Amino acid sequence: MTDADNPGSLSGAEHRQIAQALGDALPYIQRFRHLTMVVKLGGAALDSDEALNFLARDLAVLHLVGMRPVVVHGGGKSVGALSQRLGLEPRFRDGLRITDSETMEVVEMVLAGSLNKRIAGCINQFGGSAVGISGVDGSLLRARRLSEELGQVGEVASVRTGLIEDLCRDGHIPVIAPVARTDDGAACNINADEVAASLAAALGAGKLFLVSNVDGVLDAEGALVSQLDAEGTRTLIEEGAIAGGMLPKVRCALKALDAGVEAVHILNGLHEHAVLLELLTHRGIGTLITRSGRGQP
Amino acid sequence: MTDADNPGSLSGAEHRQIAQALGDALPYIQRFRHLTMVVKLGGAALDSDEALNFLARDLAVLHLVGMRPVVVHGGGKSVGALSQRLGLEPRFRDGLRITDSETMEVVEMVLAGSLNKRIAGCINQFGGSAVGISGVDGSLLRARRLSEELGQVGEVASVRTGLIEDLCRDGHIPVIAPVARTDDGAACNINADEVAASLAAALGAGKLFLVSNVDGVLDAEGALVSQLDAEGTRTLIEEGAIAGGMLPKVRCALKALDAGVEAVHILNGLHEHAVLLELLTHRGIGTLITRSGRGQP
Amino acid sequence: MTDADNPGSLSGAEHRQIAQALGDALPYIQRFRHLTMVVKLGGAALDSDEALNFLARDLAVLHLVGMRPVVVHGGGKSVGALSQRLGLEPRFRDGLRITDSETMEVVEMVLAGSLNKRIAGCINQFGGSAVGISGVDGSLLRARRLSEELGQVGEVASVRTGLIEDLCRDGHIPVIAPVARTDDGAACNINADEVAASLAAALGAGKLFLVSNVDGVLDAEGALVSQLDAEGTRTLIEEGAIAGGMLPKVRCALKALDAGVEAVHILNGLHEHAVLLELLTHRGIGTLITRSGRGQP
Amino acid sequence: MTDADNPGSLSGAEHRQIAQALGDALPYIQRFRHLTMVVKLGGAALDSDEALNFLARDLAVLHLVGMRPVVVHGGGKSVGALSQRLGLEPRFRDGLRITDSETMEVVEMVLAGSLNKRIAGCINQFGGSAVGISGVDGSLLRARRLSEELGQVGEVASVRTGLIEDLCRDGHIPVIAPVARTDDGAACNINADEVAASLAAALGAGKLFLVSNVDGVLDAEGALVSQLDAEGTRTLIEEGAIAGGMLPKVRCALKALDAGVEAVHILNGLHEHAVLLELLTHRGIGTLITRSGRGQP
Amino acid sequence: MTDADNPGSLSGAEHRQIAQALGDALPYIQRFRHLTMVVKLGGAALDSDEALNFLARDLAVLHLVGMRPVVVHGGGKSVGALSQRLGLEPRFRDGLRITDSETMEVVEMVLAGSLNKRIAGCINQFGGSAVGISGVDGSLLRARRLSEELGQVGEVASVRTGLIEDLCRDGHIPVIAPVARTDDGAACNINADEVAASLAAALGAGKLFLVSNVDGVLDAEGALVSQLDAEGTRTLIEEGAIAGGMLPKVRCALKALDAGVEAVHILNGLHEHAVLLELLTHRGIGTLITRSGRGQP
Amino acid sequence: MTDADNPGSLSGAEHRQIAQALGDALPYIQRFRHLTMVVKLGGAALDSDEALNFLARDLAVLHLVGMRPVVVHGGGKSVGALSQRLGLEPRFRDGLRITDSETMEVVEMVLAGSLNKRIAGCINQFGGSAVGISGVDGSLLRARRLSEELGQVGEVASVRTGLIEDLCRDGHIPVIAPVARTDDGAACNINADEVAASLAAALGAGKLFLVSNVDGVLDAEGALVSQLDAEGTRTLIEEGAIAGGMLPKVRCALKALDAGVEAVHILNGLHEHAVLLELLTHRGIGTLITRSGRGQP
Repeated sequence: MTDADNPGSLSGAEHRQIAQALGDALPYIQRFRHLTMVVKLGGAALDSDEALNFLARDLAVLHLVGMRPVVVHGGGKSVGALSQRLGLEPRFRDGLRITDSETMEVVEMVLAGSLNKRIAGCINQFGGSAVGISGVDGSLLRARRLSEELGQVGEVASVRTGLIEDLCRDGHIPVIAPVARTDDGAACNINADEVAASLAAALGAGKLFLVSNVDGVLDAEGALVSQLDAEGTRTLIEEGAIAGGMLPKVRCALKALDAGVEAVHILNGLHEHAVLLELLTHRGIGTLITRSGRGQP
Repeated sequence: MTDADNPGSLSGAEHRQIAQALGDALPYIQRFRHLTMVVKLGGAALDSDEALNFLARDLAVLHLVGMRPVVVHGGGKSVGALSQRLGLEPRFRDGLRITDSETMEVVEMVLAGSLNKRIAGCINQFGGSAVGISGVDGSLLRARRLSEELGQVGEVASVRTGLIEDLCRDGHIPVIAPVARTDDGAACNINADEVAASLAAALGAGKLFLVSNVDGVLDAEGALVSQLDAEGTRTLIEEGAIAGGMLPKVRCALKALDAGVEAVHILNGLHEHAVLLELLTHRGIGTLITRSGRGQP
Repeated sequence: MTDADNPGSLSGAEHRQIAQALGDALPYIQRFRHLTMVVKLGGAALDSDEALNFLARDLAVLHLVGMRPVVVHGGGKSVGALSQRLGLEPRFRDGLRITDSETMEVVEMVLAGSLNKRIAGCINQFGGSAVGISGVDGSLLRARRLSEELGQVGEVASVRTGLIEDLCRDGHIPVIAPVARTDDGAACNINADEVAASLAAALGAGKLFLVSNVDGVLDAEGALVSQLDAEGTRTLIEEGAIAGGMLPKVRCALKALDAGVEAVHILNGLHEHAVLLELLTHRGIGTLITRSGRGQP
Repeated sequence: MTDADNPGSLSGAEHRQIAQALGDALPYIQRFRHLTMVVKLGGAALDSDEALNFLARDLAVLHLVGMRPVVVHGGGKSVGALSQRLGLEPRFRDGLRITDSETMEVVEMVLAGSLNKRIAGCINQFGGSAVGISGVDGSLLRARRLSEELGQVGEVASVRTGLIEDLCRDGHIPVIAPVARTDDGAACNINADEVAASLAAALGAGKLFLVSNVDGVLDAEGALVSQLDAEGTRTLIEEGAIAGGMLPKVRCALKALDAGVEAVHILNGLHEHAVLLELLTHRGIGTLITRSGRGQP
Repeated sequence: MTDADNPGSLSGAEHRQIAQALGDALPYIQRFRHLTMVVKLGGAALDSDEALNFLARDLAVLHLVGMRPVVVHGGGKSVGALSQRLGLEPRFRDGLRITDSETMEVVEMVLAGSLNKRIAGCINQFGGSAVGISGVDGSLLRARRLSEELGQVGEVASVRTGLIEDLCRDGHIPVIAPVARTDDGAACNINADEVAASLAAALGAGKLFLVSNVDGVLDAEGALVSQLDAEGTRTLIEEGAIAGGMLPKVRCALKALDAGVEAVHILNGLHEHAVLLELLTHRGIGTLITRSGRGQP
Repeated sequence: MTDADNPGSLSGAEHRQIAQALGDALPYIQRFRHLTMVVKLGGAALDSDEALNFLARDLAVLHLVGMRPVVVHGGGKSVGALSQRLGLEPRFRDGLRITDSETMEVVEMVLAGSLNKRIAGCINQFGGSAVGISGVDGSLLRARRLSEELGQVGEVASVRTGLIEDLCRDGHIPVIAPVARTDDGAACNINADEVAASLAAALGAGKLFLVSNVDGVLDAEGALVSQLDAEGTRTLIEEGAIAGGMLPKVRCALKALDAGVEAVHILNGLHEHAVLLELLTHRGIGTLITRSGRGQP
C-alpha cells in the first residue's frame, strides 16, 4: 500500500525533493502544531476513490506533524443507490424528503457501516489510527427531530465531547458518521455540515474545513473569492451573491464563527493535497472565512 | 428510559430489596473488580430486543462496579434478510457459503452500521459509554482470507490492542463488529467467536463469555454440565458427546484457554441477567470451562 | 464474615434477586457517582453491633460504586463507662460537664483507640479500606478551647483537608475521631456534629448525613417531615417546633448548608440500609434539608 | 512550639553554626535520600517526653531532607498503669502473661488511642505530617494467635503495604500501633519489634532502627560493639555473649536481615539526636548489624 | 571533594553539632520549602574560588531541602583579561564601552563557556545537578540592542520560561549566562542584574538575591540598613543617599518588586554562608527590600 | 529568518511540491518516529555557515515529526585559531598534542561557549528548542585522563544520562560540547566521536550519525561503499582498505555497534539535507554500518 516497505522505489532526485520540501514546510507546520481542526468531507469527495486517497493521506500527514484532525462525513450517492435497490420509493412533503424508519435503517447502514469504515480504513492505510464512530457512540450526539412530518431527520440537540477528546489525546483520528439518537431512542440522520459546525464549536477547534466538490465562494464574475470576513459574507448573502448549494455551506460557516471557531475554509477535495495546500499557503486554494478578516489565524 | 428521572416510581419495599441486594452482592463484586472480560453476543441474543436489553443492562452494571467488559457481536438474522431483499443469491462451494464482494458490502453494513450501533446505543441508554467499532478502526484486526474460493471470509491474522486498551482505560465499553481488512485492503467477515477468543487472548482477559441461545454443554441425558476442565472437554469431544452447533463454541473455548484465558463461560442470553448470574453464583447458569478444573477463578 | 468465600450459600432465587436489584439500582448509583459525602455516626449507631454492621456494609457498597464517603463518629456510651470504672467523678459548671486533663485522656483513648478502630475494622471486613484517624493526624484539625472553665472541650479552629483528600484519592475511606490539639498542644474533645459539618464544608462535600437513633425532624403531630428547606427549618425553630436533642442537629445542618453543602440528611442508623435507602429513594427514610427546597440534589 | 514564628530568637553566632552544619551535613544527607527506614520506638523512649521530642524532631528532619521514615511503636509503661487502675489482675501461664479480651481492650486503647496520637502529634509539632494508624487500618496487618492459652496475643500473619506506600508517597509519616485483627475479627497485640521487622521486609526498607533505652550490643567487657555482621552475631548468641533483653532484639534484627533489609541499627533513644547521629556518623552511637559486614550500606 | 566518601573524618562532637543544627534549622527550612529564588552572582563572588565554593554549597543545600534556586551570573574580571590578551582595545562612546562583534565573541566564550561551566561544575561537586545554559538555549531570552552606537549590548526583549521550568521540575539547578540573540540573530551581552530581575518576574519567584562584594545598602553613617520597603528606598535615592555602584542594584531591585517579586536581598557573597544566613536569620546579613515593609515574606 | 511570517513568499507550484513531498515522506517518517538518534557534527560541518544551516534545519524537521535527536559536536578550526591569537605554542610528545591547563581553558571556551551556542542558536532559528550543554552539566560525563603526559585530554569514564533524558522528554534537543571533569575536578577535552558513541550506547539510541566532510567509506577504487556489516568492516580494516582519518571513525562505529547501537551512518554534512536523505533513502548518501548487515533497521 505504501512505499515504507520498499524505500528504494523513489529516485534520488525525488528524495532530494522530499527532503527539501520538508525543510520548506517546517515553519508552516510549526504554526499549526497542536491545532484541533474539524474536517467535513462531503459527498463528492467520498464518491471518488482518488479524492478519498488524497484526503486520507493529507489527514495522516497533518496528524503525524502534531495537528488534531476530527473528520465528519456526509453520505455521497450511496444512500440513494441502496434505497433504490431495496425498492424504497422516495417520498416528499413540501419539497422535503421524508425519512421513514425503513429508510433511516438504510441511511445508518450506509453512513455508519459502509462509508465510515471506508474512510477510517483509508486513513489507516497511510499509517494513521482512525476510529470510525457515529453520534451514538460514547453518547457523542443527541438528536432532536426537525419536524414530525419529515420523519427521522434531526438536528443537533446536544454534544458530549468526552469520547472525541479521549480519542484525540490517545493519538487516534475520530471519523464521525452524522447519525444520532433522539431522547426516545429513535435514530436520526443529521446534516453533516451542521454536525461538523457543532463539533467544531464544542471542541473549541481552531479551524473548520468544509470539503466538497466546489472550489469555494465565487464572485459576480465567477472568480474564486480567497478570503471573506463574517460581515462581508453576510452582505454577499443579502445581496444574493451567494446562493444555491453554497448558501447552506456559508450559513454553516457563519454559525461556526459565531460559536467561536476562528476560521472556516471551504475547499474542493477533488484537488490533490487540497487540505495541505489550504493550510500551507497564504491565499489557499479555496475560500477562507474569518470572524474579523485579519488573515489566516 | 431509566428510572433515574423519577426515583419515586419504585415502592419502599422494592427499594429495601435493592439495598439488601447491593449488600449481598458486595463480596461477589469485589472478587471480580478490575477484571477484563470479553463478552461475545451471538445471533439469538441480537434478534430479541428484550434479550439485548437484559444484556446491555448487565454490561452497564458490571462496568459501573469496576469490571472492564469488551463486547464482540455476531450477525443474527439481519444479514440474510437484507441480502435476500437485495436479490443476492446465496452461493455455496462444498457446502460452504461464498462471500463475494457485493455480499461482503451488505455484511459490513449490517454488522458495523446497524447491529453494532444498536448494541452500543442500548448500553448507552443504561448510562454506560459504549463505543461501536469494527476491526478496521485503530487497525484493531488484520484479516487473512480462509481460501480464495470462499471469497471475502477471513480469519484473524493479527491483533493490535491499543485502541481497546485506550477505550477501556478512558471508561468506555468497546463493542466490536467482526469485520476487518486483509493486507491488500479487502474487507472480510470473520467468525465472531474467533474474534472474541483472539481478543481475549491478546488482552490477557480473565474471562470469555460466549452468549447465545443455548444453555451450555449438555450431557448424554441432556442435562446441563455446570463445569468442565479442558481435559474433560477434549474427552467429551472425542467421545462424540459434544457435537452440532456446540462443537465450534467449545473448540473456540479450548483455543482461548490454551492462549491463556483463565475461564470461558457458555451461557444463554435469553435468560434475564444471564451474565450477572453466571458471575455471581457458584454453579452459574451455563457451562464454565477452566484450564485445570479448580472452580471459578 | 462475608459470603465471598462461599458463593454457593445463597439460593438461585436469591441470586436472581440480587441481579435484578443491581439492574434496578443502576440509575440511582450513576446519579451519585463521584459524590463526596460526610457521614456522621452518632452514639446510638455505635452502641449496637448490628447497627454498626448495617452502616459499615452500606459504606463499603457506596465506596465500591464510586462514591467517596468520609466518616466522623461520636462517642457512644463508652466514654462514660470507662470514666466510671476509673473512678473519675463527672464534674459540672453551670450544667456543662467539665473535661479535665485526666478525663480527656480517657476520652481520647476511647474515641481514637477503641471506637475508631472498631468502625474502621468493621468496614474493612466488608472489603473496604477504611483508615481510622483523629484530628491530630496530618494536622487535620486545630482546636480552640470553648472556655477555660470547661477545660479541654473545644471547637474547630481550622481544617486542613490534605490528608483526607489524599486518602480518598488513593481509594481509602477516612474514619475520623473528633479529637484535636489546640495551638498549645492540649488535646480537646470537639462535638462530632460540628466536626462533620466543618469537614463537609471544607471538602466541598455534596451531602452530609447525620446518623443517630432518631428518625428525623417530626412535625407537631409527631409525623416525620421528609423534606425541608433552610428557610422552613428556621421558621420551625423560631416557632419552637424543633427542640430538644434535635435542635443542635438541625443547627449543625443549617450551618453546613450556609457553608455550601448542598443537602443534609438526618436519619436513623438503627434501620437496616438506612444510608442506602436515604440515597436511593425519593422520599428517603429520614429528613432531607436543602438550601432551596427543590428536591434531592 | 518551634522558633519558626520568631526567627530572631537565635543569635547570629548560632545561625552561623546552623549554616555551617547544614553544609557539613550535605554529603551524608545525599547518601541516604529516598531511603525507606522503619524506626521502632520502644517503651523507654515513649516514657520520657524529652526523648520523644528528640526523636520526633529527628524524624521531621529526616523526612524534610527526603528520607521516608515509617514509625512503629511499643507500649511503654502505660498499659500496665491503666490495667492496674481498672483493677485488671495480671494472670500468667508458664511464666507468660495472658491477654484476655478485657485486657486487650485496654491495650488497644492505650496503644492506638493514646500513645499513637501522642507520637503523631509530637512529630506534627515539628512541622511533619504524621498519621497515626494501627494494623487494622487499610487492613495493614493480619494477626494470628500465638496460642489459645495466651489469649489475644498474636504474631504477624500477613502484611498489606498499600496504605503505607500511599501515605509515604503523599508526603506523610506513618506511625503504627502494633495491634491487628485475626481472621475471625479478634483484636490482638503483637510484639512491636516483630511488626517493625515484618514491615521493613515487606516495604523493602533499606534500614531498620530499633530504638530503646540501651546503647546497643555489649561485648564481654561491657563495651559497646559498633558493628557486627549476621554471622558474627549468630556466633555471639551461640557463645551466650548476647542474652537477656538484648536477645529478642538481636533475633528480630537477624530475621529482618534474612528478609532482605540491608542494615539494622540498635540504639538508645534517650540520647539527643540518636537517630540522626547513627545515620550521620561512621561508627554511629549504637550497634549496626549488616548482612555481610562491609560497612554501613 | 566532599566528606561523603569518608564519613569518619569529622569528630563525634562535630557530628553532634551537625545534628543539633539540623534540628534548629527545621522551622526555617519549612518556611521556605518550594520557594523559587533567583540568585544573581556578581563579579566579585566569581573572582574568588573560596567565595564560589561557599555559594555553590549553599545552593546545593537549599536545593536539597526543597527550594528551587535559579542562578544568573555576571562576568567578573575574566572578560577584560582575555580581551586584553587578544589585543582588543576597549573603545568608548560618551563614556560607555562599545561592544563590537569581535569583543562580543570573547564575552560569550568567557561567560557561557568558561564561567558558566565553572559555576555549574562547582555546584555539582556538592552533589547538586546544575545545568549551565545561556539565553540562547531553549530560546530562553530574546535581546534588543540598547543602541546602534554601543554595538552588541542589549536589554531583555522577552523571556520564555519553559526550559527553566522544565529543568527545575526535573530536579536540576539552572545556571544562566547573560547572553542572548536579537531577532536578527546577533549575540548580545545583557546586564546580569537585569536578566535576574526579568527572570524572577517571569518565573513568579518569591525572592531575588543580588550577591556581590558589598554588604548592602549603607546609611549616611555608613551603617548597613537591614531592611527597606520600596517607598523608603525611592526616598533614599531621591535624597542621594544611595549612589554609585549601589544605585543600579537598587533600581534593579525596585523593578523586580514592581514586577511582582516579593522580596529582594542585596548581600555580600564573600561571607561564608551568605545566602543561607540571609534566609535563616531575622535581620539577615545584608539588605532586604520588600514591597510593603512588613518583614521577610 | 524563516518564511513563517511571510507564507506568501513561495509560489503555488512550490507549495504543491511541498504538499506532495510531505505525502511521499509519510511512510519513511512513520518508520523512524520515536527513534533516539545521536548525531555527531564534525569540524568541517561547523566551519561552514551553510552546512550548519542545512544540518540545523534537518534536525528541526526530524524533531518535529517525532524523532529524538541528540547532538554532539567537535571543535572545528576555531580552537587552533584562538590559541594562536593568544600566543599559545602547540607542544607535542611522541607526535601527540599536549593540552596544558591554559590550552584547556581555551578549548572549553571555544567548544562550550562559542560553537555550542552557535549550533543551539541555529537550530532554534528553525523553531526547535535546542539546549547547549557540556559534559559538566547535570554531571553528564565523567572524564579520565588518557595519560599524565598528554595533560588534560581524557576519555569517557562514565555517563549519567538523566539530564539528556529529561531534556528529550520535555521536547528539547540537547547539544553537547565534549568537555568533562575528572574526579579531581580538572576539565578535560574528549574526542567527540567517542562521546557520541558512548552516549548512543548509554541512551540505547537506535542510530548514530557521524557527520563530517567526507562522503563515507570508500573501496579500493575510491567508490563509496553504501553499506557494510561489522564483520565486513573489520575485514576491510585488517586488509588496510580503511585507513587515515576514516579509521578512527570506523573504529568508533564498531564500538557503538558492539555496545548495542543498531546502525551507524557515516556521511558528509556539506551536502544539503544530508541527514534527512540518509534516513529517507534506501541506499542513503553515505555509508551505513550495521551489526548483521540485513539492511537499515
